[in-house]
Amino acid sequence: MTAPELRSVLVVGAGLIGASIGLALRARSVTVFLADADAEAVALAVERGAGLPHGGHGSVDLAVVAVPPDSAGKVVRALLDDPNVSAVTDVASVKAPVADHLAGHPRSDRYVGGHPMAGREMSGAAAARADLFRGRPWVLCPPTAGPANGAAVELVTQLALLVGATPVRMTAQEHDAAVALVSHAPHLVAALVAARLRDAPGQDVRLAGGGVSDITRVAASDPRLWREILAANAVAVRAVLSALRSDLDAAIAALETADLDRVEGLLAAGVAGRSRLPGKHGSPHTEYVGVPVELADRPGQLAGLFADVGEIGVNVEDVRIEHVPGEPVGLVELSVRPDARPGLVDGLRTRGWTIHD
Amino acid sequence: MTAPELRSVLVVGAGLIGASIGLALRARSVTVFLADADAEAVALAVERGAGLPHGGHGSVDLAVVAVPPDSAGKVVRALLDDPNVSAVTDVASVKAPVADHLAGHPRSDRYVGGHPMAGREMSGAAAARADLFRGRPWVLCPPTAGPANGAAVELVTQLALLVGATPVRMTAQEHDAAVALVSHAPHLVAALVAARLRDAPGQDVRLAGGGVSDITRVAASDPRLWREILAANAVAVRAVLSALRSDLDAAIAALETADLDRVEGLLAAGVAGRSRLPGKHGSPHTEYVGVPVELADRPGQLAGLFADVGEIGVNVEDVRIEHVPGEPVGLVELSVRPDARPGLVDGLRTRGWTIHD
Repeated sequence: MTAPELRSVLVVGAGLIGASIGLALRARSVTVFLADADAEAVALAVERGAGLPHGGHGSVDLAVVAVPPDSAGKVVRALLDDPNVSAVTDVASVKAPVADHLAGHPRSDRYVGGHPMAGREMSGAAAARADLFRGRPWVLCPPTAGPANGAAVELVTQLALLVGATPVRMTAQEHDAAVALVSHAPHLVAALVAARLRDAPGQDVRLAGGGVSDITRVAASDPRLWREILAANAVAVRAVLSALRSDLDAAIAALETADLDRVEGLLAAGVAGRSRLPGKHGSPHTEYVGVPVELADRPGQLAGLFADVGEIGVNVEDVRIEHVPGEPVGLVELSVRPDARPGLVDGLRTRGWTIHD
Repeated sequence: MTAPELRSVLVVGAGLIGASIGLALRARSVTVFLADADAEAVALAVERGAGLPHGGHGSVDLAVVAVPPDSAGKVVRALLDDPNVSAVTDVASVKAPVADHLAGHPRSDRYVGGHPMAGREMSGAAAARADLFRGRPWVLCPPTAGPANGAAVELVTQLALLVGATPVRMTAQEHDAAVALVSHAPHLVAALVAARLRDAPGQDVRLAGGGVSDITRVAASDPRLWREILAANAVAVRAVLSALRSDLDAAIAALETADLDRVEGLLAAGVAGRSRLPGKHGSPHTEYVGVPVELADRPGQLAGLFADVGEIGVNVEDVRIEHVPGEPVGLVELSVRPDARPGLVDGLRTRGWTIHD
């Protein structure tokens, strides 16, 4: 038996994700048809080069459902009934509800759930990018009831590979637990930390620094979008939040009884957990070291700095700009590999930069 | 009555903060004497130009206690008994315990607590910087029992102003509550979120993205340092954590009962709280817009980009580099004022850059 080849795809939902899939597949010469309840969305995605308008013509190897999460199950179900579609996947960020919606469907084995771990703050086909999924994990959740449909799994795996993603096999439950842990629950906690600042005296928030700013960054996200995500994954999110509440209780109790070893143990567990996050290029978390450079807050300063960095020949892994409140100067923190630091510091000093070191 | 002028200072504790104070005061022609239980620390700070070794000679206008927090109270008390010292302040990050330690001392009115809201990840006089405090708040906590000692308050205010900081008057209790809210409690919560990742399956943490990375960044800090900070401010930190626990309970209950309006309300409170954090230059939080630029992960790319940005004449407010896992490319997100965005996008495209927009 020859493995099926992905030659034609119907993308239902011509928003950011759907149109980005279309763009990426077109670049790999896959035929892409686009459908959306909103004709203008299809027109825009077609104009961007993401595919052709779907006219209901002919059969396709795979349908990709990229509609809002609360209608994903319904659309997948309708496509399973379509004799012109060989297999169906979706991109909803929570997988168990979609699988539950299909329970008992006679062709449910042709469905393989999917979740590309990619996104942008902007939405719509106008924001679509062919490289949106490059290097990102793409979770595949084949049905766990009944025998696996090898052909459907193979087609969705090809989809992920063709757009440059890394396929990751999980059950829907495993996936939902994972995103609850690394995304949904942390998001909610960040919002709760930020909410504590809402009614704080002005003189209190004036004392805030970079730490709380980092912690609460995601709390600026759209509450209407996130209420849907959290609701769809409520069981798994609650499990993480409950474990977190136990730790929070332990921390409060340890502070109450001045059990400093227990406090330190909780903090040390945080260090251990933090160190497990992946670093750049999919490699294990790499610790870079910072080089703080002073610069005036005017156009051209960064250009001069990076020109000099380029001359020195050091690769900058990350950049953070820290402004000095009330002053027209700032600090730029360049993150580099530890072995590159001494040469960079010397080179920049030689070129007249002030390194706070 | 003429306001007292700050002409001579004794800095006790020649670490990062003490030596930075010395450097900053020396630049303003204040006489600085340095003392430390560790003679090598004094020698290093003297070598850095932070002041002269303290020989017990003559009187000083102000003593600044910059020793580790758990010995601050004891050292302040000893200095209050020194007839050669007119006033005493300290820099401990929690103020009530120091004030409590001085209760009943006959000269306690000559003490004004202080807390410069500045620091670095590095420690010791080698890391000292004259501009460490520039533009940062410097909290002053005069004693609340008894009449205020105007001369002592004036001297510590001058200290803050001379090093470029912004003096902020608060009671010790107000200060401790403020830093519990904007620093200590968020730090602990970030550690608890990170701790949840410690024993997670590898396939789960592989799915982590930028959100949880931001939230848990501070969790990499030294647990031994933070256990002391949290213990010293345990009462105020517990108050914040208890309020947070109530919100967490509400969130868990709302997810359990599918009360999505309540979930959205908690998230919206997070948006409101986040918006209260100060932006750059001490101005109210400003929303910048992002311009995502594709670049190859090799030396010189950033230099070329910022050279072009400089030519276009746009001021970049922040920079974030997002690496594409497994690929030698990345995205640079330039944050600029909304009105500068269209010109920057056009200018960069004209110069051949790929903007993901």
